[in-house]
Amino acid sequence: MANQPVPVVTAFDWVPEFAKGLVRDLRVRWAFEELGEPYAVEKFGAANPRPDGYVNWQPFEQVPAFREDGVEIFESGAILLYLAEKHGALLPKRDNARWRAISWLFAGLNSVEPSCMRYFAYTVFNPGKEWTEGATEAVVPLLRQKLRRVSDALGDGEWLAGEFSIADIMMVTVLNSLKDTGFVAEFPALAAYHARATSRPAYQRALAAQLADFDGPPPEGRG
Amino acid sequence: MANQPVPVVTAFDWVPEFAKGLVRDLRVRWAFEELGEPYAVEKFGAANPRPDGYVNWQPFEQVPAFREDGVEIFESGAILLYLAEKHGALLPKRDNARWRAISWLFAGLNSVEPSCMRYFAYTVFNPGKEWTEGATEAVVPLLRQKLRRVSDALGDGEWLAGEFSIADIMMVTVLNSLKDTGFVAEFPALAAYHARATSRPAYQRALAAQLADFDGPPPEGRG
Repeated sequence: MANQPVPVVTAFDWVPEFAKGLVRDLRVRWAFEELGEPYAVEKFGAANPRPDGYVNWQPFEQVPAFREDGVEIFESGAILLYLAEKHGALLPKRDNARWRAISWLFAGLNSVEPSCMRYFAYTVFNPGKEWTEGATEAVVPLLRQKLRRVSDALGDGEWLAGEFSIADIMMVTVLNSLKDTGFVAEFPALAAYHARATSRPAYQRALAAQLADFDGPPPEGRG
Repeated sequence: MANQPVPVVTAFDWVPEFAKGLVRDLRVRWAFEELGEPYAVEKFGAANPRPDGYVNWQPFEQVPAFREDGVEIFESGAILLYLAEKHGALLPKRDNARWRAISWLFAGLNSVEPSCMRYFAYTVFNPGKEWTEGATEAVVPLLRQKLRRVSDALGDGEWLAGEFSIADIMMVTVLNSLKDTGFVAEFPALAAYHARATSRPAYQRALAAQLADFDGPPPEGRG
């Protein structure tokens, strides 16, 4: 252990209020907390400079990026997969269940999150514009359909792939973006799932760690 | 070989004109063609019934879904990853390059495709509505920024992770959704990359196979 460098995750030192608890390094922190493994945070923003050449590490200059033993990874889904493979945890062992979990990992990112993000982009970033209401009305049925399908797939099961896995870390943090919109509550199985996941001690520790790291000043002109 | 069942991919037997070449089973077909491995297509639509219990295989009832040796997978990204792992191909061997490719696989699906899909949803599914122009104007800068970052990351390199990989299959088919909008052409490195990829014989075979499978009649009321 003494010679092993601690893996590094990037995060922001400040975000506006609406983004607290939603920045995607939460997913990686949560996985580390479930694994009981240490990690270091390299944070940047107004108070801390962006790491040199960050664009070569994270081509979109977002967070999280990840580094361990010379392996650099970006995209929260890829980092979760790496951690699960490396530690032989947070993924079922049997082939069919393992690939079910990996399927759901991708589904969180590509079948569910885009509708959530459209809703978020309209209502949080573009409230009250002349096109917002029409665009929002157009995406809500799609969003509800995606949520219903996840809820139906869960049924009375506890987790998406039988046991708790990186698929659940992904799906639950995707659902977080819907916050207090009431959409998740429309689907009792989904709401119970979300509550079950976010009450896990590892989630609570990860969330507290993300929030504690927002200790930088706002950029000029922001409050 | 004789005893090995051929893996199965689901596809549609009919799609409207705008969707031809865009349905995501193309990604899986392309991977099979690059691998030189056989696959079977289970197609459905107006002419062929949906497989019984399809929702348990593909929770969103979309395509592609995949089955091999009792392992069922959905989400094109997960299927590509499975094929690469199983065949030890289409992913670099060295750890850092391998995870770079997997990062780009996720980036195609989550950092690039959502903006493309928003543009597509506005201009193809909702042309001329009173909110379409405003919503489109709001997403175009984001879309251009994503394309610029991919183009910059490519630079004068041939493929996203050094050698051709499942990341390229993903990114190129994501870019396909922009079709003749002119956005890809704005970024010469990206346009050259797209042309380089789609001129591969394996891509051409996969595309021809998808188009040939659209041999069903349109659903009632569609032409």
